[in-house]
Amino acid sequence: MRLFTATVVVSAGLICSYDVPAKTFSEIITASASRDWRAVDDNNTLYLSLSSGLVVIELAPQFAPHHVANIKTLAQEGYYDGLAILRSQDNYVVQWADPAADTSAAKPVKKAKRNLDAEYTVKYDAAFAFTPLPDVDGYASIVGHSNGFAAARDPNDKTTWLTHCYGAVGVSRGSADNSGDGTSLYVVTGHAPRHLDRNITVVGRVLIGMEWLSSLPRGSGALGFYSDTSQYVPINTVKLATELTATQRLSLEVLRTDSATFSTAIESLRNRTAEWYKRPAGHVELCNVNVPVRQR
Amino acid sequence: MRLFTATVVVSAGLICSYDVPAKTFSEIITASASRDWRAVDDNNTLYLSLSSGLVVIELAPQFAPHHVANIKTLAQEGYYDGLAILRSQDNYVVQWADPAADTSAAKPVKKAKRNLDAEYTVKYDAAFAFTPLPDVDGYASIVGHSNGFAAARDPNDKTTWLTHCYGAVGVSRGSADNSGDGTSLYVVTGHAPRHLDRNITVVGRVLIGMEWLSSLPRGSGALGFYSDTSQYVPINTVKLATELTATQRLSLEVLRTDSATFSTAIESLRNRTAEWYKRPAGHVELCNVNVPVRQR
Repeated sequence: MRLFTATVVVSAGLICSYDVPAKTFSEIITASASRDWRAVDDNNTLYLSLSSGLVVIELAPQFAPHHVANIKTLAQEGYYDGLAILRSQDNYVVQWADPAADTSAAKPVKKAKRNLDAEYTVKYDAAFAFTPLPDVDGYASIVGHSNGFAAARDPNDKTTWLTHCYGAVGVSRGSADNSGDGTSLYVVTGHAPRHLDRNITVVGRVLIGMEWLSSLPRGSGALGFYSDTSQYVPINTVKLATELTATQRLSLEVLRTDSATFSTAIESLRNRTAEWYKRPAGHVELCNVNVPVRQR
Repeated sequence: MRLFTATVVVSAGLICSYDVPAKTFSEIITASASRDWRAVDDNNTLYLSLSSGLVVIELAPQFAPHHVANIKTLAQEGYYDGLAILRSQDNYVVQWADPAADTSAAKPVKKAKRNLDAEYTVKYDAAFAFTPLPDVDGYASIVGHSNGFAAARDPNDKTTWLTHCYGAVGVSRGSADNSGDGTSLYVVTGHAPRHLDRNITVVGRVLIGMEWLSSLPRGSGALGFYSDTSQYVPINTVKLATELTATQRLSLEVLRTDSATFSTAIESLRNRTAEWYKRPAGHVELCNVNVPVRQR
């Protein structure tokens, strides 16, 4: 491990400068305190069950309250159970929906709403959680993290939005702004398509199980849709965590992005000190920050 | 399709302004002329054959001449044939090597060299191809494209380097700068890990077949290595294209990144005009530009 020189106050009035080992990201996370973590809110967490494995999605109601509410209603009425992943486009997204959505055999929606107004951005005020990154971003004037989610802000109109980083979950729509409702969702599985930011409603992110989505065979049809319907990947169930028994739930925690530990961890990504690295980047791009998740 | 207003000289001295349809990226590529494309150089192209499919890699000798020469020697002496992909780390890289590399059963290297000096950057001069992007980048002061490859520059010391975008191919190494030689290579399969730029030698990019690498099951061991050796993905052969028969080769072409067509295509990514998009980004990040490849 390489050393860097730090100036540390060791007692009142006495400042000394000496070499200390700069910790790596994983060392910082390992050394974190329990207060640096928050429990994932079961009331805003979906468990998507595939035959290959479990995908856990945390929803962010503060960014898209109506869409999140509708998605929870859809999960609670069993809408997603038995649907399928229909699309896997390389370096872009997977998407699921009702394969019969456009036919007379479409699965009916019960209590949930259809065609919600867009929630591409929301207004923020001083109380809205946000920890900015120190670095420039090409797609927004300010980027950072809000309660564990990668997000951006426009201070001119006081709007904020979730960004399309790897693992972001969004609401598929047609050309009309209000053509999405949560009956079809997508997950980013490639390099962050940030040009989608503020063009489509993002509702949360995958906490664990990304590999079951990202490693799916790519579809050979246009936009990565499976042209062979035998390739559809069945969704067994999508349950809100509160519907599961205690033993079925994972006790997940997310690192608090408003903690000093997170800020230290960010700096360890901006300037990596592990011996392997020869030249610190002096920068970390928003979507290169993977906010840690652990099982309690 | 949305319209924008363009000012066009329609005859000498007459300028008129009227609404014209702004073309999308794919429309621009479809309308390109044959002079906008260059043939891929078979002398710098590797055909990696997996049982699932073919991966074609274009090497960039102008950025890493000694490593590219060594990799070509390794391919020509059959070093890679029968090796395996040992690692698939989600949202990061796949990596191949000799599974027995650290044992007495290691496959011998014949004419190729071991442990080359790093080629993290090279010097550029006025003749070195480069088309800059107009937009800010967090990891380098200037980014753009050089002969089809995503690259960056530091005008202060006149160095340039290939960037770690999706599909970039690099030379694995240990902690020492000169511990890489091409016997083990990696390919970026996730969000661009640009912090690796200038820390490791990049030698080229995947032109076609990324899906055979990106969709591999993720390894459960540390760093995504397959802990179960039965998961190793055999590499049948890696051949330099010039070693193949004419019928075995694909006639691939890459869009010229110094063409006006490419500049127009970049602008169509910066400000997308398809009806679906509601808010143009006004920006395109280097690794969101997929330089088109086609079969002649």
